[in-house]
Parts: sequence; C-alpha cells; structure tokens
Amino acid sequence: MKRDANTPQSDQDRLTIALIESIANQVRAAIESGDLPKIRMPTRGLENVTYDRAAGYLELGAMEKVRALTVNTARSFAQMLRLMAASRAMVKSNDFATKREAYYISKNWGDCRFDEQAESDAIMDDIEAIASRQSLSRENLRFYPEAHGGSVAGRLVVIDRNVLTGETIEIDCAKLGSGAYSIPRSAEQLNFRTDARFILAIETGGMFQRLNNHRFWESAQCIIVEMGGVPTRATRRFIRLLSDKHDLPVYCFVDCDPYGFTNIYRTLKAGSGNAAHLNRFLCVPRARFLGVSPQDIIDFGLQDATHPLTPVDIKRAKDALGNDPFIIAHPQWSAAIKQLLEMGVRAEQQALAKWGLNYVIDEYLPRKLAKVSEFLP
Amino acid sequence: MKRDANTPQSDQDRLTIALIESIANQVRAAIESGDLPKIRMPTRGLENVTYDRAAGYLELGAMEKVRALTVNTARSFAQMLRLMAASRAMVKSNDFATKREAYYISKNWGDCRFDEQAESDAIMDDIEAIASRQSLSRENLRFYPEAHGGSVAGRLVVIDRNVLTGETIEIDCAKLGSGAYSIPRSAEQLNFRTDARFILAIETGGMFQRLNNHRFWESAQCIIVEMGGVPTRATRRFIRLLSDKHDLPVYCFVDCDPYGFTNIYRTLKAGSGNAAHLNRFLCVPRARFLGVSPQDIIDFGLQDATHPLTPVDIKRAKDALGNDPFIIAHPQWSAAIKQLLEMGVRAEQQALAKWGLNYVIDEYLPRKLAKVSEFLP
Repeated sequence: MKRDANTPQSDQDRLTIALIESIANQVRAAIESGDLPKIRMPTRGLENVTYDRAAGYLELGAMEKVRALTVNTARSFAQMLRLMAASRAMVKSNDFATKREAYYISKNWGDCRFDEQAESDAIMDDIEAIASRQSLSRENLRFYPEAHGGSVAGRLVVIDRNVLTGETIEIDCAKLGSGAYSIPRSAEQLNFRTDARFILAIETGGMFQRLNNHRFWESAQCIIVEMGGVPTRATRRFIRLLSDKHDLPVYCFVDCDPYGFTNIYRTLKAGSGNAAHLNRFLCVPRARFLGVSPQDIIDFGLQDATHPLTPVDIKRAKDALGNDPFIIAHPQWSAAIKQLLEMGVRAEQQALAKWGLNYVIDEYLPRKLAKVSEFLP
Repeated sequence: MKRDANTPQSDQDRLTIALIESIANQVRAAIESGDLPKIRMPTRGLENVTYDRAAGYLELGAMEKVRALTVNTARSFAQMLRLMAASRAMVKSNDFATKREAYYISKNWGDCRFDEQAESDAIMDDIEAIASRQSLSRENLRFYPEAHGGSVAGRLVVIDRNVLTGETIEIDCAKLGSGAYSIPRSAEQLNFRTDARFILAIETGGMFQRLNNHRFWESAQCIIVEMGGVPTRATRRFIRLLSDKHDLPVYCFVDCDPYGFTNIYRTLKAGSGNAAHLNRFLCVPRARFLGVSPQDIIDFGLQDATHPLTPVDIKRAKDALGNDPFIIAHPQWSAAIKQLLEMGVRAEQQALAKWGLNYVIDEYLPRKLAKVSEFLP
C-alpha cells in the first residue's frame, strides 16, 4: 500500500535528511580511511543546562560528548545509525513513530535489537539533541510523543492537509459546539488563521468546558486551550507555534498553588531540566500568569473557599524560592510565593464558583483582562 | 448576563424538573401534615450490585434506603435538597457543574456548606441513583464529569448546537486533518449522521494517531475513538449513544494483558461495581473484543515482541478467573485468560510495529475484521 505519494517534502524535511546523511557520510569516510568513526553530540545532563534570562527558558549548554566505535560501543553505535536510518525513512514516506513504536521496530534488527525501551529512548534523545543544534525538532525527525495534546476552541481556523491527497483542510475551532479540536501529536505542518487577541491556556478540563460551553472566547476574542494539568509536549508545541506565527500573547489560568506556579506555568513558559534540548521548541517565554494569584484570593474574596497548604505544597514552594532559577530570576514570583506561604492556603480556579458558576466569566476574567500589565511574569 | 434564552427545554429536561419537584412536594407535604419528611433512594453499595447476563452489565439491584429528617441528618437532608435545587436551576438555565464546582457552590450555603468534596459527591451519587430509576442520567441532572472524553475521527458528522443562539452546528470528523474531535463532557444533546459500518475503540493515543494520520477509517468505513486507557465516563457515554442511535457494532482494540481485558474492555462493556447506577447509561454491552488476543500473539508472530507477565498481571488474571462475574459468565474469556497465563507473556498493540509501522493497517486489522464472528465476547 503506497502512501503519501502526493506530499511534497518541506524545507525542514530536506534539512533533516541532509543532517542524517552528513553524519552517515562522516562515519563512512572514517571507516574508508581506516579510522574508527565517532559521532559528536551535546551532553544532555543537568550539568549542561542553564537558565538564560534573555532567552527566557532552560537551555542546553555547549558541552559535548563523543560516541566512538569501540568493542564496547559497537551495539549502541549501530543502534544509533539504525534509528537515524529509520528517521530518514519516515521523513521520506511522511510517516512517524512514537517512542514505543521505535522500540518495537528494532525487534527485527537481530543483534541490534533494543532489550528495553529505556535504551532506545536514550539514543533517540541523543539524536534529538544533535538535531536541535540545527533547529530541527523531534517532530522533524518524525519521533512523535505518545500523549496527545489538549483541547482547543475559539476564534481560530487550523489549516491542515489530507495526508493522502495533499488537499487543504480547514478546521474552524469556533464551530465545534460543545466539543473541541484535539491537538495532534505533531503540529509542525499546521498553519493558522485567526483574529484572536490572545491565547488563554487553562489548567483544568472543567474550567475549559465552562468557558467553551458559554462561548467565552467569542466576546473575549480569544482562543482557549485546555492543558489538563502539566501541558504535554504536543500542547506546548501547538501554543508556541500559534503564538509565534500570529504574535499572540499567552495568558495562563491555573490553580493558585505551588504546583500550578512551578510545574504547570513554569513548564509552559521556561521548560524543564529534563530533555532541555527540546525547550527551544516547546517553551513559550512570552507566557504571562493571569491567575489565580495569591492576591486574587484577597481581591476576589475567596478566603473561605481555600484549602490549607499541604506539607508537599510548602516543600515545593520553599524549593522554588531557594533553587528554581526561573523563580529566582523574577522577584515578583518570589514575593508571590512568599505571600502564599504567609497566607498558608491554596485556591483552585474552580473556587470562583463560590460566587456563582459563571462569576468567572462575568466578573473574574473581565476584571483580570483589563489589567494585563499586572500579570505575574 | 442572561444566557441560553433561545434554548428550548428537552423532554429529558422536563422529566428532570418534574422528578425534583415531585420529591420537593413530598417533603413539603410531609412537613405540612406534621410528619418528618423522608426520601427513598437505591442502596449504592456492592451488596446491591448484580451482573445480569441478559442485560450485559453490572446493575443496581432493588434494595433501598431511606434518608429521614432527624436531628442527626438535618444537615445532610438540607444539603440534598439544596443540591437538587441547584440541579433544577441548572436545567432551567441550561448550565452544568462539575463535581468540584458543585462542592464550591455550597460555600455560600452557610451552615449547609460541604466541608469536603467527599460529602457532596456522596449526596450527588444518591440523587443520581434516584434519577437513574427514571432513566435520567447524571448529565440530565447537569452534573458533568471533570474529565473530558477521548478523541474521535472518521466517517461521522456530529450535530450539536450553538448554546447561545440555538443554531445548528455540524462537525465533520472526516475533515479534521491530523487533529480530531474532542468529546465533550456531556453528549446528551448530540445527534449524528454517519455511513460507518462500525466503531473502533482504541486503547492508546499512539495507535489512534497512526490510524488517523493514515486515514484508516476512510477505507475501513468506520469511526475511530481514542480511549486513552480506561475510558472516561464521557467517552463511554459518547460511544454508547452513537452505537445506540445508529445501530453500530463496537470493536475494542487494546493491549493483550489482564489490565486491557478486565479493566479497559470490561469497563467499556459491562461497567464497574462503583457507581453501578450509572452503568445503564454508560455501558456498551454490544462491544466485542477485536484484539490483541492471546491467540493473536501466535497467529501474528509476536512472540519475540512480548514481555513477561508481571506479578500484578498474574494476580489480576487469577482474580478475574475466580471472582469477575463478567469473565465467569463467558467461558471464552476464561479460556483466553488461562491461555495467556500459560504463555506467561503480554503484548501491546504497538508490538505489531515489529513487522513495520503500518503492518497494523495493511495486515492485522483487515485480517481481524474479516472474521468478526471470532472476536471474544
């Protein structure tokens, strides 16, 4: 069964193939001149991760390691070449593989086969790190994340194409009723048309459904995205691409607790130390924190709809104050976290329902959106 | 801000309001005649749950309990009436609340307020159990689940409406590109148009993305639904309504392991003992198990892409053989689970990638779908 015959290769596809072929050619040249081949790649450990305040995210430093072909590395060296060959084949056939699938593909590689997915993941991360230096993402390599993205609704037309015929497909995210657009695992090929003024990234599914069912995005002239806790890579990449292509501000609406600040919001904005080579593609440095902020608990009278901070909350808050380069770089965040610790409570975004189910739509969001400059950074 | 003025009430809405008003009238009548009011409701414990092979799902039995107004129950009695009043108000305004929101609403109820969500959940379950006797679902009461549904693609047009204007909205799930339709938290108001021959319910997001990106549903003439592990209530309700309204078979495509059989598949088909009053709305008794079956591991040469059963797998399998009324009622399932225990391995649906990424599309699914009558029940 022949697939994707009508799909032209993109510039990114050509760059990806060129990168893989250039590494392969170096390996072959070394062998032909009687040398042991080696492949240089960025070091991926935390010792090579820095927070650059100007860039606004955690990024990989300049440290490199070398994988040379020796008796001990023969198997992993061969696996790396085979995975790169698989990547090249997928670019050519316009296909993709999840990390799990890539692991299973190797079951037919004889002695080269991976015994555990941890092995294939580590080698895939190395290949991704090499590609990231050329501004090529893991999706360009056709390694897709397992988890899909969140839901989207609002003033946005997504422009995709039929992968079999090449025909253009337009999805109007204002015409999905009570449902929504489910973000695909790779957003690289998408384009957008929108008259939205901003993107609202929402922590919980319940709040997303409320804002969608009441078509909040219509009058507020925005796009709403459900993160569902810490946003998946697919969600982060989608928000980043959409924000970049249409110069859209991104406002984050999450629970008022240390997890919401330092895990959900911080991951969206500045990324994580894990897989730091991906942050340049995934992070949204322009994101701002709409709420719920500690001050909101006071300003919107939520004191009796809060819960006490748990020991885990308190530890997370103190760790952030002491160790998190993003928090330390932003005094306003340190002040907000200290304020929360003094108050001793946390508040969920759904706590606004205390004043009525749609208080969030009628009062909270309009008042907040009138003072964007006061959002936490 | 007035909402939903144009939305006519449905028959279900009228029945829901009538039920709530009839209970309220009984309470008032008792008080006016000097009696202590009481409310009868189904017992929700496991002792009142049975598996009816003819119906095909775990259902609530006939046992009842009575909540009478006493000094000790004054608070919970009042909470129950207030939650029913909130439900009636939401039906009238065409709104809804998640369980979490319903808990927060009570923060303005003075002495009636819930201290913990567990309290409001239990009372909500009682109200749902009463309503279920009248064939009214929790969504009819406007209590929506927190978790959204899975993704959908394929030969299906979903017919919804603009909740503000009443205007009809049609979503063509064949025209969403690499994205998909995200199932809303309530599917009650949806209608469908389809020429599909069946619904394929898929365990993993990765497999869903593969079948969607290659538009498997086009040639196979079907609708694909991503369950993402054990399907959420929203996903189960959506599949059930779609299957009922268009008389569509439902085939389940999950991993070959005890969790896939007894948690994912069994939950979709026969429900769970928890919240058994919901099973009549959520279960899909006509669902059949496409695979991956233990016999598939042999028939499709997957032996070297399997993993050993873990102790948890073995315990789950033995529990199912000894205690699960659904498994016990189906000798074919008992035989299949015994076969898996003898083989000592499990296989994921992505293990088919051993034969090439699209072997599942080109070989596995066509061969299985040619022999539907051999699917496990």
